[in-house]
Amino acid sequence: MTESMVLGVDVGGTHIRVALVSRAGVILERGKVPTEIHRGARHASMRIAGESRRLMDKARHHGASVVGLGIGVAGKIHRARGEVIFSPNLPAMNGYPLAMELRETLRVPVVMDNDANVFGVGESWLGSGRGIPNWIGVTLGTGVGGCLVLAGELWHGDDLGFAGEVGHMNVDPQGPPCACGLRGCLEAHSSAGALLRAVSEAARGDWLGCGPLYRRWMKGNLTAEGIYLSAREGDPLARELFRRMGWGLGIVLAGLFTVLGIRHAIIGGGVSAAWDAFAGPLRVTLEQYSSFLAPEEMVVERSALGDDAALLGAAKLAWRAAERGEG
Amino acid sequence: MTESMVLGVDVGGTHIRVALVSRAGVILERGKVPTEIHRGARHASMRIAGESRRLMDKARHHGASVVGLGIGVAGKIHRARGEVIFSPNLPAMNGYPLAMELRETLRVPVVMDNDANVFGVGESWLGSGRGIPNWIGVTLGTGVGGCLVLAGELWHGDDLGFAGEVGHMNVDPQGPPCACGLRGCLEAHSSAGALLRAVSEAARGDWLGCGPLYRRWMKGNLTAEGIYLSAREGDPLARELFRRMGWGLGIVLAGLFTVLGIRHAIIGGGVSAAWDAFAGPLRVTLEQYSSFLAPEEMVVERSALGDDAALLGAAKLAWRAAERGEG
Repeated sequence: MTESMVLGVDVGGTHIRVALVSRAGVILERGKVPTEIHRGARHASMRIAGESRRLMDKARHHGASVVGLGIGVAGKIHRARGEVIFSPNLPAMNGYPLAMELRETLRVPVVMDNDANVFGVGESWLGSGRGIPNWIGVTLGTGVGGCLVLAGELWHGDDLGFAGEVGHMNVDPQGPPCACGLRGCLEAHSSAGALLRAVSEAARGDWLGCGPLYRRWMKGNLTAEGIYLSAREGDPLARELFRRMGWGLGIVLAGLFTVLGIRHAIIGGGVSAAWDAFAGPLRVTLEQYSSFLAPEEMVVERSALGDDAALLGAAKLAWRAAERGEG
Repeated sequence: MTESMVLGVDVGGTHIRVALVSRAGVILERGKVPTEIHRGARHASMRIAGESRRLMDKARHHGASVVGLGIGVAGKIHRARGEVIFSPNLPAMNGYPLAMELRETLRVPVVMDNDANVFGVGESWLGSGRGIPNWIGVTLGTGVGGCLVLAGELWHGDDLGFAGEVGHMNVDPQGPPCACGLRGCLEAHSSAGALLRAVSEAARGDWLGCGPLYRRWMKGNLTAEGIYLSAREGDPLARELFRRMGWGLGIVLAGLFTVLGIRHAIIGGGVSAAWDAFAGPLRVTLEQYSSFLAPEEMVVERSALGDDAALLGAAKLAWRAAERGEG
């Protein structure tokens, strides 16, 4: 009998990543191509199909066959239809029948969910969420995504296309403007976008100082990583921005622990690499604003799977659908 | 065969209320006595037992027998032990084995939960929550309590003794001081305590004006109801305080809708009687801060059961325990 494999796909604003994944969660092959969403949804869909086909061929070389594909996309997702309802980072995808097209092109079942939700499935399966029935997931990237795992399952609420969207909980109504048009969302404090906007603003206001952050800014192409390195080198503004990031996360997690009556959170996404710059202020704020829990009860951990959490979570969704004969 | 009945008990800071409740949720008899918590936990426990015994006699006159007692108490509750872990309004109850004592005195099974949680059970059973699988409950009283009903069941999280405590979610870190020692909790914006504190402060600061609120304040014994009546009579400060109450509720509900992916909330507690003074600002804020839902999708309703929600919810807990043979 041929061994079965699945594909996990993570569609980001810049890159599409694809992985060939065994039933035990081992990644056997990987692929990565630019998303180039400016060339339209059909182009991105063909990119995904192309990489997937390449890995399906690789599976055959392993003596295996691909029995399903799981895909995580940032945005509000219609899971049953396999469509992106609304994605701020991939606007061309809105309403595009991505899952159906991939199903027809690749002739395998396809399941879709939000990118932070597949992160949650991945961490629950093989990462920091293993054995923890109730936890809050936060993904720090250009924006801030999130998920809830409740009673051991990814929570989908009323199945309105979103859940766990911690990034747009309000942290401070007088806070900085957010990409969504409001002020003071978590995302406006604790995302790469927020860091970069704050530095631009400081540059315009001529209060960037003349330290590491200023030097990186002058070179152009400043990234969140550059701001992190500047913080490590002692730049006061960079340090303050990561303090604010941790503060926002602490307020939101304290509130969610209080209202959900739980005590675990897992933080992933690219910007979680700056952990040592924001985890301290996060912890201080969390302890300050948690009225019902003792400090030692609260556990906030980093993602154990890093970049692979979403790929593995998407793969797990494909496995589940294969077991149920769905997709 | 003798008909079965249960007792529902609601232990508040000022009054203990007891009801004799049929399986269909009809309240056949009621009792109400002052809590007098300053006289200690044992005294309050004996008051509950006394009223309960009186209603058990009444049950016999109805040709019925009482098969269980459910009790709701404000505070952090150890459900398995039937103990109040910590109650800000009933500090004498902390650690007191109330359920065990009532069980031994009355010789019926006794189950205990938080007062806002029994509100949730009551509204789910017979009130505004009927047929709604996922909703947030908020009880507006001296403080602000809350509950979550998820997938048709009262949510207890990690069973840490609390869940749904929306009152201590932070709404505005620069906001007014809260009884819990922090600033800007929902409770510091949207409770009777917050209303009364704000009026005292205005009186001290000499900016109470000379309208209806000032006149009521001068008479002494101002209540939340007096502030509400002043708002209805057009008092600008009273109106502003209810606007702030609605604003806080709107921020919290918007955040919870966003993170839970749900769209229903039910508001109860004594101060919800001031509905027309705060529901408008609540709605405006909710719509402003809900990035993922259209206004028409969001439903915020008043409790249908009013004061009886907690009594009926406590009774329902007793029925459930009786059916499972627990307590």
